[in-house]
Amino acid sequence: MPVEKRNPIPVSEAIERVIKQQIFTNTIEVSLDESINHILAEDVVATYEIPRFNKSPYDGFAIRSKDTKGANGQNRIAFNVIDHIGAGSVSDKIVGPFEAVRIMTGAAMPEGTDAVVMLEQTTEQQQSFTIRKSFEPNENVSLKGEETEVGDVVLRKGQFINAGTIAVLATYGYAKVKVTQKPTIGVIATGSELLDVSDELEPGKIRNSNGPMITALSKKLDLTAVAYQIQKDDLESSIQVVKEAMSRHDIVITTGGVSVGDFDYLPQIYEALNAEVLFNKIAMRPGSVTTVAVADGKYLFGLSGNPSACYTGFELYVKPAVLHMMGANAIYPQIVQATLMEDFKKANPFTRFIRAKVTFNSKGMTVVPSGFNKSGAVVAIAHSNAMIMLPGGTRGFEKGHTVNVILTESQAFEMDCII
Amino acid sequence: MPVEKRNPIPVSEAIERVIKQQIFTNTIEVSLDESINHILAEDVVATYEIPRFNKSPYDGFAIRSKDTKGANGQNRIAFNVIDHIGAGSVSDKIVGPFEAVRIMTGAAMPEGTDAVVMLEQTTEQQQSFTIRKSFEPNENVSLKGEETEVGDVVLRKGQFINAGTIAVLATYGYAKVKVTQKPTIGVIATGSELLDVSDELEPGKIRNSNGPMITALSKKLDLTAVAYQIQKDDLESSIQVVKEAMSRHDIVITTGGVSVGDFDYLPQIYEALNAEVLFNKIAMRPGSVTTVAVADGKYLFGLSGNPSACYTGFELYVKPAVLHMMGANAIYPQIVQATLMEDFKKANPFTRFIRAKVTFNSKGMTVVPSGFNKSGAVVAIAHSNAMIMLPGGTRGFEKGHTVNVILTESQAFEMDCII
Repeated sequence: MPVEKRNPIPVSEAIERVIKQQIFTNTIEVSLDESINHILAEDVVATYEIPRFNKSPYDGFAIRSKDTKGANGQNRIAFNVIDHIGAGSVSDKIVGPFEAVRIMTGAAMPEGTDAVVMLEQTTEQQQSFTIRKSFEPNENVSLKGEETEVGDVVLRKGQFINAGTIAVLATYGYAKVKVTQKPTIGVIATGSELLDVSDELEPGKIRNSNGPMITALSKKLDLTAVAYQIQKDDLESSIQVVKEAMSRHDIVITTGGVSVGDFDYLPQIYEALNAEVLFNKIAMRPGSVTTVAVADGKYLFGLSGNPSACYTGFELYVKPAVLHMMGANAIYPQIVQATLMEDFKKANPFTRFIRAKVTFNSKGMTVVPSGFNKSGAVVAIAHSNAMIMLPGGTRGFEKGHTVNVILTESQAFEMDCII
Repeated sequence: MPVEKRNPIPVSEAIERVIKQQIFTNTIEVSLDESINHILAEDVVATYEIPRFNKSPYDGFAIRSKDTKGANGQNRIAFNVIDHIGAGSVSDKIVGPFEAVRIMTGAAMPEGTDAVVMLEQTTEQQQSFTIRKSFEPNENVSLKGEETEVGDVVLRKGQFINAGTIAVLATYGYAKVKVTQKPTIGVIATGSELLDVSDELEPGKIRNSNGPMITALSKKLDLTAVAYQIQKDDLESSIQVVKEAMSRHDIVITTGGVSVGDFDYLPQIYEALNAEVLFNKIAMRPGSVTTVAVADGKYLFGLSGNPSACYTGFELYVKPAVLHMMGANAIYPQIVQATLMEDFKKANPFTRFIRAKVTFNSKGMTVVPSGFNKSGAVVAIAHSNAMIMLPGGTRGFEKGHTVNVILTESQAFEMDCII
């Protein structure tokens, strides 16, 4: 049942409508290497204790602490070194009174020992050394299970699999990992004015930049996006290509054709697909006419043809939908606060998103709009690493004000080394 | 000439020594699709003006502003609509006095017109409408070239190619893009105590987690890392495998074997390779024995076998080296400030990096250590999205203090939606 009337809803409400859909990808089992950038489909438990045995956190000598009683500068106590073991080895000696085993960082404590003398705490001779302090039981020892016990949940279902996650999975021997499938995305740029990147320019036409941009945004999420041929403003063929994309992909993104103008076919396309329109007007600029619908368990995103609005729509709605479908725990845009370094005097009847550049310096984080911010100012996107988010119903943000900022590009920061 | 003595140098000095090497990858030409996550090898200039023609930023009517003189509520002026054009079309009509062309957002201004009446500024009838205000020349018109002139540098050499960059390249018709090659990485985990992920545990051994973690960290940079077989503590075979990796890769990373212990073969390996050791001791914890060397125009990173130190070493030294080799403008770790939410009373003789979790709430950004922080606390890495960086020579950071934080995982944020 398509919604024809356009009532703007708040951005937060729009995100909630997107992520409350019961649309999820399947659980699959993949190899450890393949699991990166997926979402864990089940809790992961520790398969052994860490440490697995009492071990030495230093290079030194394993001894019996009771032998050290009374040691001080005037009363040095001598130990006889009876063995020498590396990190992967285990001593087969049993350590007796005033005996020691030379031990490497990470090596198991030899039988009978309960303390480690660090190299710098000794005076070494040939096969012996002396110490000048006493040691407590378990001094300089990493105890079995002190980090993790068997069965402890070490990774949670819904966690994004990053490098640290991979390290944990490897540690516990998970050569296969249960994850959710990544959704695939079909991208359809619409508009009779659009040319392909390699086409010669023609009067009144522009090249399609939203299609490649969405493919790139998808790749940032390690998703595969398939670009369909540019659709001219023709209802029947547009319905056909959207249907075809829906048959092959979990998400179909159209760009353009959502301006409230004469050639806006989206409502008719959604009607033909019997799609449920979640909303078709959001209290935001740019991109107020961003539309999201669902049909046959697939998401349909109607993003604006304006590149800034298209980018904003992807970050605000497509990305959370993708993470939601994969069962992720963390699905919202990443927001920080920064000091605005230029006046921004425009009224914001709706929540306004402004392409911006965040810089960190010793005083904190500052932000400036990243350039010309009119419709289609595609260069401003390339020079931004963030979006300033100004609440609706406000006017007159000034230099020095603190504003909310969504970080969009972790790699685009250019700054002095301040370490 | 290997440096045998271990003099700790500051972290910033270590980074500088890494990135001042004259080691760069080649320039290649790739398709637009393939160019993502590369670094631009040359400036990119605008191949046409944007806008390319005077155009309408709104749906409305294109008119001659001079015809609107004197219009007001008591004196509505009527216009006759003589044509109707979409976004990709151009009107072949010449607009005369009190004539108008119905025009869509983005369409070229018809000949003779110099202002756009927005739909909501009109009262429409069949083929005509009236207005109640006068219009200035160029009112509601986006002027040719107002965003970008031909030849303007729109993207700079050294810029990371992200989704916004792709959009600009597509807009200006760059179907091929000159970029620098991505370096390839060979990863060699060393240590007789290491097992593969699918091996059964044995006493005194642990599974290799650093190798898979480095592969994953490399993939985050969209680089290919090749894992070599785990190297037991044997000098000759270690030299051979490092040589083999150097013959195939731009960067060779070894993990482990850098503890100052009996089985530390790295200095001998570097000597055998005739490598220049840039440093082998840094005033940082963990990872003070992180070593970087260069030989035959290749980087050799000797990262710690401790997973936290290994991760930190990759973020602080490998990543800047990769970006430097690719000619990137932005090469330093991304640092923000956050409020510490737990006391951290340890002394920091060296700069200390602590795995941490950053959270954003309405009061700003807060950070807590992400768990058990002993050597090898690999679970803490998986539950972190940042590293707290405490300067050397300090002691006693308390809850409420502002600390510097390196954000490492943009996707790991879990937070309420605060939009």
